[in-house]
Amino acid sequence: MTPEVPNGGSRLTAEQQAEIDASRAELHETRRVTVKALEEILFRPLPALDHGFVRVIDYMGDDSAVLQAARVSYGQGTRRVREDAGLIRYLMRNWHTTPFEMCEIKLHVKLPIFVARQWIRHRTANVNEYSARYSLLDREFYVPQPEHLGTQSTANRQGQGEPLAGEEARRVMELLREDAERAHQHYEELLNEDVRGNVRDPQRRGLARELARMNLSLNFYTQWYWKIDLHNLLHFLHLRADEHAQYEIRAYAEVIAQKIVQEWVPLTYEAFKDYRLGGAQLSEKGLAVLRKLLDREHVDQASSGMSQAEWRELMAVLGRDG
Amino acid sequence: MTPEVPNGGSRLTAEQQAEIDASRAELHETRRVTVKALEEILFRPLPALDHGFVRVIDYMGDDSAVLQAARVSYGQGTRRVREDAGLIRYLMRNWHTTPFEMCEIKLHVKLPIFVARQWIRHRTANVNEYSARYSLLDREFYVPQPEHLGTQSTANRQGQGEPLAGEEARRVMELLREDAERAHQHYEELLNEDVRGNVRDPQRRGLARELARMNLSLNFYTQWYWKIDLHNLLHFLHLRADEHAQYEIRAYAEVIAQKIVQEWVPLTYEAFKDYRLGGAQLSEKGLAVLRKLLDREHVDQASSGMSQAEWRELMAVLGRDG
Amino acid sequence: MTPEVPNGGSRLTAEQQAEIDASRAELHETRRVTVKALEEILFRPLPALDHGFVRVIDYMGDDSAVLQAARVSYGQGTRRVREDAGLIRYLMRNWHTTPFEMCEIKLHVKLPIFVARQWIRHRTANVNEYSARYSLLDREFYVPQPEHLGTQSTANRQGQGEPLAGEEARRVMELLREDAERAHQHYEELLNEDVRGNVRDPQRRGLARELARMNLSLNFYTQWYWKIDLHNLLHFLHLRADEHAQYEIRAYAEVIAQKIVQEWVPLTYEAFKDYRLGGAQLSEKGLAVLRKLLDREHVDQASSGMSQAEWRELMAVLGRDG
Amino acid sequence: MTPEVPNGGSRLTAEQQAEIDASRAELHETRRVTVKALEEILFRPLPALDHGFVRVIDYMGDDSAVLQAARVSYGQGTRRVREDAGLIRYLMRNWHTTPFEMCEIKLHVKLPIFVARQWIRHRTANVNEYSARYSLLDREFYVPQPEHLGTQSTANRQGQGEPLAGEEARRVMELLREDAERAHQHYEELLNEDVRGNVRDPQRRGLARELARMNLSLNFYTQWYWKIDLHNLLHFLHLRADEHAQYEIRAYAEVIAQKIVQEWVPLTYEAFKDYRLGGAQLSEKGLAVLRKLLDREHVDQASSGMSQAEWRELMAVLGRDG
Repeated sequence: MTPEVPNGGSRLTAEQQAEIDASRAELHETRRVTVKALEEILFRPLPALDHGFVRVIDYMGDDSAVLQAARVSYGQGTRRVREDAGLIRYLMRNWHTTPFEMCEIKLHVKLPIFVARQWIRHRTANVNEYSARYSLLDREFYVPQPEHLGTQSTANRQGQGEPLAGEEARRVMELLREDAERAHQHYEELLNEDVRGNVRDPQRRGLARELARMNLSLNFYTQWYWKIDLHNLLHFLHLRADEHAQYEIRAYAEVIAQKIVQEWVPLTYEAFKDYRLGGAQLSEKGLAVLRKLLDREHVDQASSGMSQAEWRELMAVLGRDG
Repeated sequence: MTPEVPNGGSRLTAEQQAEIDASRAELHETRRVTVKALEEILFRPLPALDHGFVRVIDYMGDDSAVLQAARVSYGQGTRRVREDAGLIRYLMRNWHTTPFEMCEIKLHVKLPIFVARQWIRHRTANVNEYSARYSLLDREFYVPQPEHLGTQSTANRQGQGEPLAGEEARRVMELLREDAERAHQHYEELLNEDVRGNVRDPQRRGLARELARMNLSLNFYTQWYWKIDLHNLLHFLHLRADEHAQYEIRAYAEVIAQKIVQEWVPLTYEAFKDYRLGGAQLSEKGLAVLRKLLDREHVDQASSGMSQAEWRELMAVLGRDG
Repeated sequence: MTPEVPNGGSRLTAEQQAEIDASRAELHETRRVTVKALEEILFRPLPALDHGFVRVIDYMGDDSAVLQAARVSYGQGTRRVREDAGLIRYLMRNWHTTPFEMCEIKLHVKLPIFVARQWIRHRTANVNEYSARYSLLDREFYVPQPEHLGTQSTANRQGQGEPLAGEEARRVMELLREDAERAHQHYEELLNEDVRGNVRDPQRRGLARELARMNLSLNFYTQWYWKIDLHNLLHFLHLRADEHAQYEIRAYAEVIAQKIVQEWVPLTYEAFKDYRLGGAQLSEKGLAVLRKLLDREHVDQASSGMSQAEWRELMAVLGRDG
Repeated sequence: MTPEVPNGGSRLTAEQQAEIDASRAELHETRRVTVKALEEILFRPLPALDHGFVRVIDYMGDDSAVLQAARVSYGQGTRRVREDAGLIRYLMRNWHTTPFEMCEIKLHVKLPIFVARQWIRHRTANVNEYSARYSLLDREFYVPQPEHLGTQSTANRQGQGEPLAGEEARRVMELLREDAERAHQHYEELLNEDVRGNVRDPQRRGLARELARMNLSLNFYTQWYWKIDLHNLLHFLHLRADEHAQYEIRAYAEVIAQKIVQEWVPLTYEAFKDYRLGGAQLSEKGLAVLRKLLDREHVDQASSGMSQAEWRELMAVLGRDG
C-alpha cells in the first residue's frame, strides 16, 4: 500500500482501468436526452481521499426533464409563462420536489467503511455493495493527511478543533497505519489465503470470509454502486456538503456536487446553491427580530425568546456581531 | 369525443404528435448502455383502453446493468462461474432484488382516474401528474367495450361474472357516456370557460379549476410521468398483470410487460415469467400434501389442515381436480 | 343527504357510533408511554368539511420518545447538557429528522376522493382504503359552503379569487348536488342494487362494483386508515396546512395539526410552528439584500438579481412594502 | 471484558438496569389495543450473541389491527364471511401486504457493527444509532463461540463448512480478542481519554472522536433504536432467519421471530410460518416437472430445462433424492 496516490489512475487495478477504457471506447446512438459534459467523464474515477473515487456509470435526464415534468403538472397554463431558469428556481424555492425526481444517476463509489456507514443512512437510494462474505477485501485503508487530523472540539461535541501537528500527528498516522496493516495480515491468516485467493498453509483450514472480515477496522475501503434521483441527491448534498458534516464524507459530497451535478444539471445546481447551500432558514422568532432590526428598534437575545446558540446563529446569518 | 379510436395516433393532439416526431428525429451519441429495441419505440404511444396509452420517455440500464451490480456484490468469486442468464435466474429465484433496482424507466401514461387511483398505491415510484388545479381536463373518458362489462361475481366479491350483452350492455354504455358528457358540460359551465380556455359568458365569473374538477367522474382520463426501477416495476406487474387484477389496469400492465419490459431486459423478463408470473407459492401444509401425493399416500382436504379455498387453489396449481 | 351536519355524531352510522362507544369503554393497563390528552379523543370523530372526519385510532410515543432517540444518537455527551424543549428545538432547527420518526400515529379519515388524490401523493405512509371493488359507496358527497366557492384567480393559476355569491353561488351548489345525486342513482341502476345491497330488479343482472364506481364523481366520500410517523406527518402538515394548499385538504391538515399533534407532542409542535409554519427560507441572494438593508445601503429588485415575484415574497417576509 | 456473559443482566450497565426497572414499574391506563405477552417483556433485554440484546421499547396494534385494516378495504362484504385466522391466512397467501403495515414495533438493539451493516440494508425502517462522533464506544466486541467458527465453504462461496476445532479454533479466538483489545487501547490513546471520558495525558491533545473510531474493528458493538412496521419486519425475518443468512444476524432474527413476533401477533406469525418460513416458491418449469411426477411420467434434470442447482433445490423441496 502506498499512502499517497498521485493520480486517479493508480486507484484502480490494471484490470479495472482496461475495463474503463473499453467501456469508454464504445459509442452508441440514442434518442434519449444526452449531456455532453457528463459523457466526457463517464466511467472515469474522480479521486476522493487517499484511495477513494466516484465514477458516473449512467444517468437519466437533465434540466429539461425537470422542466418537462413541471409542465405536465402545471399543464398548458405555464407553458410559455416562465422561461426555464425561472421555472426551476420557482420549483426549488417552493419545495416542489417531484420534478427533480425525474432525473436519476448511478455512481460507482470507493469509500472507507466508516464513511459508508454515514452514507447508507440516506435510505432513498439503490445500493449494491461489494460483499466481503463472497470476496476478499484488499489491503487498502484510509489514513488522514495531517491537516485533517482534527482534535476533539471542546465547544461542539460533534466537531473538531485545531488539527494535530508535528510529532503528535506523526504518531497518530503511524498508529493507524500499523494497526490496519496488522489487521489485514491477521485477516489473511484467519482466512489462510492471500488477497489473490491463494492458500497459504495447505495443512490448515481457513475461517469463512464472512467471519474473518470482522477483524478489519472501519477505515478499510469498500465500494458500491449507488443510484439515486436528483431530488434525493440534492438532499444528500445539502446535508453532507455542509460544514457540519465530517470532512471525510464531505470530500465525496463536494466531488459529486462540483464535478458531477454542476455539469449534469447546471440550472438546477445554480438554484440549489442559491436556495439551499447559500440560503438560511429563519424561525418566526428570528423574523420578528429581523423586522425590529430593520425598523431600528432595540432587540437583544434576552428579549428575543431565542436561546444563546440560536441568537448567535441568527447574527452569523445576518453578518453581524452578536 | 369519438368512442372508438382505431389507432394510437388519434389518441394524441396534433401538437403532441408533432412534439413526438421532433423528439424522435434527434439522434445523439452516448457512451451509456443503449437498447436498440427500446430506441425503436421511444416516445411512441402504445395504445391501452379506448383513449389511453403508455410511452417510454427514458430508460437507464439493461440486463447487463443487473449483472454488473450482482457481480460487484459477489465480487471476483462469481465472475466467470455463472453465465448471464443463469445468474439472472439465480437472483430472481432467491429474491436478491437489489441488482434489479439498478435499472430505471420513465413512462408517460394516459389513464382513467379510477385506474390511476389503484396504480398510485405502488409507492416506490416517482410521479408527476397533470394537475387539474392549473389546467383544464379534456372531454375524454373511458367507456368499456361490451366484452368487458362484467357482472358482479357471486362467488368472489372482488371479481366479475359473465359480461352483460345485448340491450343491457347497450344501456350501460349509453348511461356511462351520457353522464360523462353531461358532467363535462357542467364542468365547463362551472368554469365559465371551454377546454380551449375561452370565456363563455363574460357576464359571469367562473368557479376555480381546483373546485370545478370535483364534478367529473372517475372514468375521465388523466396523465402522468411515472418513473420506477426495474425491481419495483416487476412487483407492480406481478400484481397488476395477474388475473385477479381489474381488467382496466391489467390492460396497461400487459402493454408494459410484453411491449416494453420484454424488449428492454429480455433475460430478466424470461426469469420473471418463469418464477413469478408462471410460478406458485406453496405453503408448508401444501408441501406436506404434495409429498404424500408423490408417495401415493392418501390425503384429502379434511386431513390436510387447509381450508377448502386453499385446497382448491393447490389442486389448480397441480393441474388436478380437487 | 343533508348538506349541513350540525355535529360529528351524524357523520357516522349508528353501527359505527356503537363500535366507537364500545372501544372507548375498554381500559387496559400498559407500561408504554401514554398521552392523556390523546386518550381523551381516541376513536372520536373530529369533523372536517360537510361529511368528513379524522379519528385517532392508535399512537406510539410522545415528545419523550423523540428525546430518547436523540440522546441515543448523541450519547452521554448531551445527556444533561440541554433540557428537553431546547433539544427538540435544536433537532428541528438543524433538520435532524430521525428522532421524530420514532413516534407513529394511525388515523381513520373520511374525505372526498379529490382530496384523497392529493393526500396519497405523500408516499411515506401506510394506507388501507375502503374498496369500491368489494363494497358499495354511500350517497355522500362534498358540496362546498358558499364562502369556499372561490373563483379562478387571474394572478395565480393555482389559486382562487373572491368567492362567488348570491345567485351564482346558489346555481353552483345546486348543479354539484344534482349531478352527484344523479350519478349515485345511476350507480345503483348500473349495479342493480341499492346501497344496502338489495337487488332492485330481479330480471336484470348488475354491473360489477369495480366498474359501476367509475360513474361517481370526485366529490364522493371515501375513507381510509392512514398511519405515518411524526416526521413525515409534520412534512405533510407543512405543505397541506399552508395557505397555498387547496382549502379542502387544508381543512383536514388544520384539524390534525391543532386538535391532534398539538395535544400529542406539545414541545415538538411548538418548535414546528416556530421553525416551519411561521418561519421562512431565505436564499443567498435574499440574505445579501437583507444585509444591505440592515446596513442602510441602497438595494432594489433590479440590482438584487431576484425576479419580481421573488422580490415581492422577500419583502412580504420582511413585513415591508416592495 | 468477559467473553462469556451468563445472563442478560450483565449485558447492561447498572445505570441502564436501573432505568429499565424504573420504566417497568410505571403502569398507565390506555384505551389502545394492548398485548399482555408483550407487556411482560417490555424494556427487558433478550440476549443475542455474547454481548448483544434486543429490547421491545414500544408497539402499536396486534392481530386485530391487521383484521380491522383488511375489513375496511373489503368493506361490509367480508365482515362476517371469514373468521379471523382464515382472513389473516388469506392476506398472507395472496400478498395483500398493506393490512400488516398497520402494526408497528420499536426495538432497542445492541449488535456488532458488521451485523449492523447487513441489517441497515433493510431501508423501510426508522433508525437512531448511537453516534461515535459524539460519544465513546465501550470495550465490547464480539468473538464467536467455537461452534460458530465456520470454515469457508468450498461448495458455496457465501456459506460455511465445518467449524474449526481444537487448536485452530483457540488460535482464531485468541487472535480476534487480542486485535480487538489492542484496537480499543489505541482508540483510547488516539482520543487521549478513557471510556469514562477522563483525560489520560494532560500534555497531549486527543484526536476527534469521529476520527479515532476508524481504528476499531467491525466486531465492536454498537446499538440503535429500530422501528418498523409488521409487514417489513416479516420480510426482514424471512430473509434473515433463513438458513442462508449469516449466523450472527440470524441469532437476532430468531430472537425477534420467536420471542417477540410470536407473542405479539400469534395469528399472523402462524400464517407467516406456514406460507413463508416453511413454504417454497416453485417456478413454471418446476410446476411442469411436478405435474409429470404426479402423473408418473418420466422427467429428469436434462429434459426439465432447469439447471442442476435448480433441480437439486426442487428435489429437496419435494423431499426426494435428485
